[in-house]
Order: sequence, then C-alpha cells, then structure tokens
Amino acid sequence: MTLPRLATFTAAGRTRYGAVTDKGVIDLSARHGAKWPTLREAVEAGALTRLGEEAATLSPDFAEADIAYEIPVPAPEKIICVGVNFPDRNEEYKDGQAAQSNPSLFIRFPRSFVGHGQNLVRPPESPQLDYEGEIVIVIGKPGRRIAEKDALGHIAALSLCNEGTIRDWVRHAKFNVTQGKNFDRTGAIGPWLVPFADEAQIADIKLTTRVNGEVRQQDRTGRMIFSFRKIIAYVSTFTTLVPGDVIVTGTPTGAGARLDPPVWLKPGDVIEVEADGIGVLRNGVMDEATA
Amino acid sequence: MTLPRLATFTAAGRTRYGAVTDKGVIDLSARHGAKWPTLREAVEAGALTRLGEEAATLSPDFAEADIAYEIPVPAPEKIICVGVNFPDRNEEYKDGQAAQSNPSLFIRFPRSFVGHGQNLVRPPESPQLDYEGEIVIVIGKPGRRIAEKDALGHIAALSLCNEGTIRDWVRHAKFNVTQGKNFDRTGAIGPWLVPFADEAQIADIKLTTRVNGEVRQQDRTGRMIFSFRKIIAYVSTFTTLVPGDVIVTGTPTGAGARLDPPVWLKPGDVIEVEADGIGVLRNGVMDEATA
Repeated sequence: MTLPRLATFTAAGRTRYGAVTDKGVIDLSARHGAKWPTLREAVEAGALTRLGEEAATLSPDFAEADIAYEIPVPAPEKIICVGVNFPDRNEEYKDGQAAQSNPSLFIRFPRSFVGHGQNLVRPPESPQLDYEGEIVIVIGKPGRRIAEKDALGHIAALSLCNEGTIRDWVRHAKFNVTQGKNFDRTGAIGPWLVPFADEAQIADIKLTTRVNGEVRQQDRTGRMIFSFRKIIAYVSTFTTLVPGDVIVTGTPTGAGARLDPPVWLKPGDVIEVEADGIGVLRNGVMDEATA
Repeated sequence: MTLPRLATFTAAGRTRYGAVTDKGVIDLSARHGAKWPTLREAVEAGALTRLGEEAATLSPDFAEADIAYEIPVPAPEKIICVGVNFPDRNEEYKDGQAAQSNPSLFIRFPRSFVGHGQNLVRPPESPQLDYEGEIVIVIGKPGRRIAEKDALGHIAALSLCNEGTIRDWVRHAKFNVTQGKNFDRTGAIGPWLVPFADEAQIADIKLTTRVNGEVRQQDRTGRMIFSFRKIIAYVSTFTTLVPGDVIVTGTPTGAGARLDPPVWLKPGDVIEVEADGIGVLRNGVMDEATA
C-alpha cells in the first residue's frame, strides 16, 4: 500500500495543498483551507493520514503536470540542519578529530529552498553550488527536553532535502556556516510529506543522491552517527519544538566538494535525492537572472 | 525632542502594540490593529514615525507599570546576529588570527528572547549564562544585494539586544554556535523600536552593558569592525531582507566569559544594555522552573 503524499503547490494561480496520487492531484485546501490554511496547521492537527484517506475517495482536481511544487511546510518556525552525521563524512574533514558526541547544528531560512521540480539557483557570487541529499523530519507534537524513548512520537511526517550549499561561502567568515547555507533558492525540500507512523519507515532506509543519473551519495540511515531519536532529544534540550518545525538530518559522504578535483553543479544538471518509502526529490539548476 | 518609542506588550490579557510616552502607554493596536495586526506590518508600511506623532496627541491607555513588554517585532522572518564586531573582541579570541574581511553570522529563533523587564532564564543544563549588549536594526524596506551607499535607507528602526548566551553550549559540537545561542528565553530584545531617520542616530553612539550597576562592556559604534552599511550589504548578498527582519550587530569586549575567572549571570542579577538615543534594556535572571 502506498502511503499518502501531501504537497504544497501552486496551481491555477494560487498556492494550495493536497494529495498527489497516481491518478492526479487532489486539492484538499479547497475543502479544508478555512480550518487549516496551510499544511502546517494540518500537521499541527495531526490530520495528515486522515487527509490522505479522504483523498483516496476523491477525483483529481489537477494533473501533476499542471502544478508547481512549493516546499511542503510553507513557513515553518524553524528549519534546523544537522551537520556531519555519517561516519565517512566525519573522516572527509581530515582534521584528525574523532566524531563528537553532539550534533553540529545550523539554521536555514525557508527562502533558501525551492520545491520539487524547480531549479536550484546558482548565484553570480560563486560557481561552488553543491548538493547534499538528506532525510527531513517534520515535527507534529510540541515538546521540550523530549526523551529519546518518546522522540519518534513527535514526528508528523517525512520528506527529502537537497541541502544545496555555496561551498566557499560556508567558510567566508571566521565562524559559522550561515551564509553558505542561506543563499536564496539554493536548496530544495519535497516533493511532499509522507505521514510518519512506524519506526520501520526510517530505521534503516537507503538514501541516495544522483547527479545526471550517476550515484554520488548513498548510505543507510542505520549508519547515522546521531539517530533521529538523539537529534530530537538534543535539539529539544535548548529549544521548544513546535508543529511544522523541520529538521534536516544530515548527508552521506560524496558531495561535489569531496571529489578530486571538486565538481560543482551547473545549469543543465539534474539532481535527484531518493529514499525508500518517501520518494524522489528532483531539481535542475539555473543561473540567477541578474539585472 | 524625544523620538517615538513603539513597543509590543501584553496588557489587560492580550498582546498589543503602542507608544511608550512619559505620561504612559498609548494602545495603537486598538486603533490600527485591523490594518497592521502587529508592529511588523506597521514597519512594513513605513508607519512608525506617523504612529509616534499620532500617539503624542492621545491620552495614555495604560500605565507603564501595567504592561509586560514583549520583543518588539513578534515573529520576524529572520533574526541574524553578527559575531565578533569590535576590535578588542577579536583579540579576546587569542587565536593569532587577524580580524576577517567578512562578518561571522549566526541565527537565533524569536523564542530565544524575552522582552524588556522579563527575566532571562538560566536552564538547568548549564550555569554559564552570559550577557552580550548589542544594537539592533530592524529592516523596513526589502532588498537583495543592497549597495552600502543605499543600506541605511533599508533600516526602519533601532532597538537593543542582550544577546544572552549559554557559553559552554556554543562549542558543544564540532561546528557552529547554534545551540548556545538558542536556549529558550536566554536573551532579550527591546524595550521598543525607535524609528530610524538619520545616520547620526547610529554613526558613533555609546553602547554600555552594566551588571548590577557595574559597567562590564562599553564601546562606541564608530569602532565597529563591520559598519551597519557593510552588514546590510553583506547579509543581503545571500538572502533577501524583508520588513521586520532583525539584525543584531555585535557586542563590545567584556562579556563574563572573558573575565578571569569567568563570571556568569545568576538569579537576582540585573543586566542593563544602554545606547544613546535608544534607551535602556533591563532584565533580571531566574532559574528555569523544571518539573
């Protein structure tokens, strides 16, 4: 059985949300928009599975070809990203340091992402646009100092991220990766939310990133240094997690920066991030139009 | 002539905004809330000075003692903080590196701040709560790749920040200061917004932080490594600035971590951040109530 796939998209001139099925796209915002203006409120209401079940009984409103995907939760309070989180990736840093006992974290703004099918934007400031395929968890139930044993109960949904990065701007200043991670429209989240119901959906799934069909990153979540449980427990130690919060959980080895010589993304490339049971996030690349 | 002081506050059971005058507090949200639900929309409309002028003709609705200040822009899209930005502060790091040519940046969530007069919250995870007095600029006019010559025209207002930090959690992981800067309610912004009209308001003003009346930090904005113009130009290179965005512009030398031995904030302390023409941001400290 296929799990529901709930997306935010633009169609017929406005932003909507709905279910993507094999037959087409069902506009659920037309039916529930007064109660839940966006998928964020539907996440907060714990309504994703129910929306998926309802959609299964309805006829499509749009063909998938007639919608433009947006990022699934349009204005989350937070998007928190985990840095080095796969064993070989720590070794890539070649700084002689063992992996640390706590996850490195940074923050991205929603405007640094585009939806599925949109082009990533290479800015004129740098040719070093790079990919990082990652699994996304979306928080459904609020909490602070969540115990690891309770952590998975706070997940509402799963998605995918191409945590696109302007590599030379990650070390543009003395501390922090902020600027290299926050160029407008350099990453992607999507295509959709898959409701989370069972630990088996994430415990040991395969995560793959392909560039123009060539596998560049591939690993399994069972090898993550910091588990989903640990990440939720750790992050909620300092900040209250709220419904709609997005956590981007780290990328396997094999980003373009680590190839010898490095290989950067360029217009015409197609990047696919795929994970078992979630889907395929596919994006092209374009140069930014500048005046 | 005193410039208008526009605050977000709770009074008589709900969140409001208004002007703080010597006679009392004028509730402007009661008059303009339909058009501008929060000060963010008033900032976007370029209405701060006009609101201040209107308030000068009205009688107070509340005594200042009867309001509880909130952070002035309740849900900004972004709060971007500048790291090391005063000359002596770079030397404090004792790492033999010259100041870099670009500002270090990190991001804080709104929930990591309280309003003026509220207690900062020391979490049970660490005794290392530290202060950092800073000047805040609030963006009024959107822009990307703003030229330095045009930068000040994008500022709507000024405020103050105690960029409170859990010092040992700033280096809790391999990279990035995220967690030490984002414990809930460990910093403060306020007391209010002062409309920005003239470069003289920020060009070379004195910024002071006192703990229990003792001066711990004091410097002048004329000595900032990265000017307000440079910060706006640099940040807008990668992200589109929008009305309500908050930029916290860096702290002078003298945080508690730099004293020998270090001195941390504790319940009962009173921290005041003051800058010429903006006001005094005053906060106490309390231990977090844990179950």
